[in-house]
Amino acid sequence: MSKQLSGKKLVIIGPGLIGGSVARGITRAVPDCEIVVVGRQQPVLEQVVADGNASGWSTDVGLACHDADLVLVSVPSLTVEAVLREIGQTDAVITDAASVKGEIIQAARRVFGEVPANFVPGHPISGSEHSGYEASFPDLFRNKKTILTPLDNTDADAVALVTALWQSLGAEVLTMTVPHHDAVLAATSHLPHLLAFALVDTLSKQGTSEEIFRYAAGGFRDFTRIASSDPQMWHDIFMTNGDATVDVLDEYIDDLQRLRKVILKKDSEELMTTFSRAKSSRDRFLEYLAASDLPQPGS
Amino acid sequence: MSKQLSGKKLVIIGPGLIGGSVARGITRAVPDCEIVVVGRQQPVLEQVVADGNASGWSTDVGLACHDADLVLVSVPSLTVEAVLREIGQTDAVITDAASVKGEIIQAARRVFGEVPANFVPGHPISGSEHSGYEASFPDLFRNKKTILTPLDNTDADAVALVTALWQSLGAEVLTMTVPHHDAVLAATSHLPHLLAFALVDTLSKQGTSEEIFRYAAGGFRDFTRIASSDPQMWHDIFMTNGDATVDVLDEYIDDLQRLRKVILKKDSEELMTTFSRAKSSRDRFLEYLAASDLPQPGS
Repeated sequence: MSKQLSGKKLVIIGPGLIGGSVARGITRAVPDCEIVVVGRQQPVLEQVVADGNASGWSTDVGLACHDADLVLVSVPSLTVEAVLREIGQTDAVITDAASVKGEIIQAARRVFGEVPANFVPGHPISGSEHSGYEASFPDLFRNKKTILTPLDNTDADAVALVTALWQSLGAEVLTMTVPHHDAVLAATSHLPHLLAFALVDTLSKQGTSEEIFRYAAGGFRDFTRIASSDPQMWHDIFMTNGDATVDVLDEYIDDLQRLRKVILKKDSEELMTTFSRAKSSRDRFLEYLAASDLPQPGS
Repeated sequence: MSKQLSGKKLVIIGPGLIGGSVARGITRAVPDCEIVVVGRQQPVLEQVVADGNASGWSTDVGLACHDADLVLVSVPSLTVEAVLREIGQTDAVITDAASVKGEIIQAARRVFGEVPANFVPGHPISGSEHSGYEASFPDLFRNKKTILTPLDNTDADAVALVTALWQSLGAEVLTMTVPHHDAVLAATSHLPHLLAFALVDTLSKQGTSEEIFRYAAGGFRDFTRIASSDPQMWHDIFMTNGDATVDVLDEYIDDLQRLRKVILKKDSEELMTTFSRAKSSRDRFLEYLAASDLPQPGS
């Protein structure tokens, strides 16, 4: 699979957690792929090259992409449009790594009139509460899923090249439609992050928040880990996938209101049923993970 | 500190995750402390003795406690009352490990007329989504907090003995009032568990729940880890600390509704403010953990 990238020029725009991890991983997996990193912070770009994770850097998007074979746009969702505009018309295959896809499709339409056949929208489902190049590592995508959402007019060879990129990094590559991607991610990622941000916020406002944090046990720590994620990235996600997130948030609030009544009524049977059902669903999820040979949750 | 338990007889009623971990930890820390485990499942009791974590076992609470120095009642909250009744009048110091304390105080009053001076309500803040003796381990309490909630009439020597028990296991022992304990735990433990149970439940009901679980990323996994906890234990907690939990749940739902409006309005500034505030609160919590030399969250 790495043959596809061999001898090619890969431009990574935004060498943060995602872009930096791609640079590290491809450097290791496809040593003769030429990598150029593009960004605004020159010291970071120089560091990537000094670390041997790219052979060159630039702050000029258009110039860097001029003779590229593949361009990865790994910047916050709301910055993708400006970057696509700087890339302009090109023969290179373009892909992105944004967590929402509907907004990216619209951005591409605004820039190019229609979504170009050589643009393959993508989303590696992997991340960390840490951000920036210093948090990047070559195995970030290993055994994780990357979802591509090609349109009807997307070029098959372009999809194949982007598939090869993620597979070279150890990811499993899947495709789905744009709206389906945004609904699934709203439920599995965007809603949980929203709940974690809100919980930390609620507890911070308690008069005794210092004490609250002092007695918080492991459950709280795990639950709120994702609240340490990059605020800019999550700002952009909720600005662009708000509707799908609010849909599933409304169901969740309904469920909380139902549970609230069950608790106030001390409805023993319903509490047991709800908790047992949640446990067996969650245990099924862990069995699925084990069967997929994906990394297990930290103990 | 282990001197206090040296040569004493400790009876552990309910050798599950908590009771089993106490048996393992005290066996290691205070080898000449005589440990007797009491429960209903004879094979488990025999296993504890076979493992060398107790010198004897019994299914008769009264008989086992007859000449005990210290009795630890580590059973689900709603079972504590029945166990206290079986223990009856005794000179032994009695303590418990239930996650709620108001209900336990009331249970003791129902059993004994007033809370006996030799009863020290306690709560080790440590646990796991796993349950039962097979999940127990001697370091479960190490570097964790144990909260005692003695009353005005509680005997100081009884408090000292129970303090010695938890300190021998490596825990930091603190005291607070009963209502304060229940409010703090509602916010830091009971609410997060409720939110996790509800999230798994909401997602399980989605038409595409199989797919939802398939694409769930690490954030979802961490967030919902606690939903795999013992349903009976959590049933008892919400049956007995429902009011305090609903108080903070209501604040949380208000915060979610506010965030919902912010998302629908695409209020960029407010989203950034909220997420940045949550991140800095959460990061402060991590700094606190680091400063306390407590174990860090799993990476």
